[in-house]
Amino acid sequence: MGWFTKDIETMDDLFVHTLQDIYYAEHQILKALPDMIQKASGQALKDSFGIHLAETKGHIARLKQVFQQHGVEEKGVTCPAIDGIIEEANDVAGEVEDKQVLDAALIAAAQAVEHYEITRYGTLVAWAKQLGRDDCAELLQLNLDEETATDANLTKLATSEVNRKAA
Amino acid sequence: MGWFTKDIETMDDLFVHTLQDIYYAEHQILKALPDMIQKASGQALKDSFGIHLAETKGHIARLKQVFQQHGVEEKGVTCPAIDGIIEEANDVAGEVEDKQVLDAALIAAAQAVEHYEITRYGTLVAWAKQLGRDDCAELLQLNLDEETATDANLTKLATSEVNRKAA
Repeated sequence: MGWFTKDIETMDDLFVHTLQDIYYAEHQILKALPDMIQKASGQALKDSFGIHLAETKGHIARLKQVFQQHGVEEKGVTCPAIDGIIEEANDVAGEVEDKQVLDAALIAAAQAVEHYEITRYGTLVAWAKQLGRDDCAELLQLNLDEETATDANLTKLATSEVNRKAA
Repeated sequence: MGWFTKDIETMDDLFVHTLQDIYYAEHQILKALPDMIQKASGQALKDSFGIHLAETKGHIARLKQVFQQHGVEEKGVTCPAIDGIIEEANDVAGEVEDKQVLDAALIAAAQAVEHYEITRYGTLVAWAKQLGRDDCAELLQLNLDEETATDANLTKLATSEVNRKAA
C-alpha cells in the first residue's frame, strides 16, 4: 500500500489507508474492464464484464460516501497488488490467440481481481465495525456482496460454458 | 503470468502455465512467511503463520506431483500478482510501529495472499476436471481446502482478538 511509519499509527490510520488502497484498485479496474470486454468473445462473458463495469462505478460512489462519513479526504494510494493482478490480466488479454482459451483466461484473471477485492472489503468491513463505524461497514458490505456475487457468476460461466468449449 | 503467444494455444497450455504461476507464488510465500512470523507479536498469529509455513511446503510437494502426473517439467513463471501482494505485505511489516496495529495489518496482508491462492487453485481444479485430469484435480483440491481453512482461521483471529486489542 506504499505507506510510511508516520501514516499508520492507529487502527483508524490502517482503516483509512486500506480504504485508499481499494479506492485506487477500483479505479484501476474501471480502466481495465473496457479492454477485457473488447477481448472477450462469448456474449455472456462480455455481458458479465459490462455489468461489472457499471457496478464498479457504484462501488467508487459508495467509497466516496465512506470517505465522507468518516470525515477524511477521498484519495487513492498506489497498490502494487492490484497493479500486479491487472498486469497478469493484460498479459493474457494480449497474448492468447484462440478465442475460447482467451475467454477462459480472462475469466481466471477477472476472478483474481474479484478475490483481491473480496479480501480487502472483508477486512474493511471487520475494521469499520471494530472502530464503531457501522455506517461505513454497511456500505462496504454492499460492495463486498456484489464482488462475491460477481465471482460466483464468473465461476458459473467458466464451468458451464467457456471451459467446455475450449477443452 | 508473463506468457507469450506461442506458449498458450490450448486449454492444456493455459492449465500448465497457471500451474507454473502458482508454483512460483508458493515459493515466494515460503520465502515471505519467516519474516511475517518474526514481525507478528501475538502468539496465536505467530503459530498460525508457522502452521501455514509447514502447509506451504506440503502444497509445493503436491504441485510437484501434479506436474509429474501431467507429464510436464516442474518450473515456475514470474507472477506479478503475487509479487505485488507480497510487496504490499512487506510495506506493512516494515513500516507500522504499533505491535497490535501491525498484527492487524499482517493478517490483512496474509488474507490477500490466501485469496490469491484460493482463486488460482479454484481455477486449476475446474480446468483439471475439464481436461479429464481428475487425479490432478484431487491434489489441487487438497491445497485449495487448506488455503480456504487458513483464510477462515485468519478471519477468526482478526475478529476475535487482534482488532479488539488494536482499536
